[in-house]
Amino acid sequence: MDTERLHQQFAFLREIDREKEITRQTWLADGSRKENDAEHAWHMAVMALLLAEYANEKVDVLHTMSMLLIHDLVEIDAGDTFCYDTEGQKTQAAREQAAADRLFALLPEDQGKQLRALWEEFESADTPEARFARTLDRIQPTMLNAAAGGKGWTEHGTSLAQVLQRNACTAQGSQALWEYSRENFVRPFVEAGILKKE
Amino acid sequence: MDTERLHQQFAFLREIDREKEITRQTWLADGSRKENDAEHAWHMAVMALLLAEYANEKVDVLHTMSMLLIHDLVEIDAGDTFCYDTEGQKTQAAREQAAADRLFALLPEDQGKQLRALWEEFESADTPEARFARTLDRIQPTMLNAAAGGKGWTEHGTSLAQVLQRNACTAQGSQALWEYSRENFVRPFVEAGILKKE
Repeated sequence: MDTERLHQQFAFLREIDREKEITRQTWLADGSRKENDAEHAWHMAVMALLLAEYANEKVDVLHTMSMLLIHDLVEIDAGDTFCYDTEGQKTQAAREQAAADRLFALLPEDQGKQLRALWEEFESADTPEARFARTLDRIQPTMLNAAAGGKGWTEHGTSLAQVLQRNACTAQGSQALWEYSRENFVRPFVEAGILKKE
Repeated sequence: MDTERLHQQFAFLREIDREKEITRQTWLADGSRKENDAEHAWHMAVMALLLAEYANEKVDVLHTMSMLLIHDLVEIDAGDTFCYDTEGQKTQAAREQAAADRLFALLPEDQGKQLRALWEEFESADTPEARFARTLDRIQPTMLNAAAGGKGWTEHGTSLAQVLQRNACTAQGSQALWEYSRENFVRPFVEAGILKKE
């Protein structure tokens, strides 16, 4: 047994426990509280399992799932940058690079490289798996926002234009899921006046 | 686009959001609060990715991960039965079967069968993936209990005998992970008098 390797792996696994304390801006479906990054990642991993059939291009489900499980780890140091926080977004990339440098270095070198490559692949959106993972990263909070009666949109005074801009690339991973989301999660809240047309 | 199929899939995906509200008996590593089933599943899925190399038998990582992601869904209806709650355990199987009947029936028939088979496989421990998944299901809370300074063990007055009984099958999925856990997560708390020898 390579104890040093196990020590490094478990040091990383303990450290990422902190992802459970990174609160997002998305309310749970029942509106009782906001979800955290670990819950979000779990939910999307299950979505990858059940919805991969709708990806525009054939995807490797394990690869997609692995990306989804780890892509927000950098927020342990960098924090969650709200998708409509334009000031925070100016420093987001630098904060997240520094976080990746620290976090992935906790692992044995081969696995640190593997997880960093997965994170960079997600960020780059250069592969079918990354494009589909990014689509799920948009669909999951939209589904929850709708389930919670638009609570997050009301709270932030979100406009339809903001939602459409946020989803500018959602169809790139799955045309079918974007159309479903637009018709079932977005449109009813435009019609109800909750998502402002401006 | 098969809208009826998507409606069923999203009805299920909304329903399982409730897994985020099923509190377990395990404290987060920093001892700030107890974790929930969704966080637990996410943590173990990452563990499957990083620790599969220690499985006694070669495992399919996607299959293991899928099992880990969904195996606690039945607790949405059945609740979390604490591993040392012998009264609760008498009715656990019946409560969980009823939960599985309801939850997996929300999905399109093919996917309902697929997830139910995954859950039953986990319960049966009849495959290398199920044995390894069950090992991770024991190692993850033990790692957190140790990280939190034995807080959960102190709270419940847990004995070494209880921990050993709970881990009676942990080595079946991975001898290396069980030995590491015993030496690094359990033994120090026996020596410190936190896990009682009786």
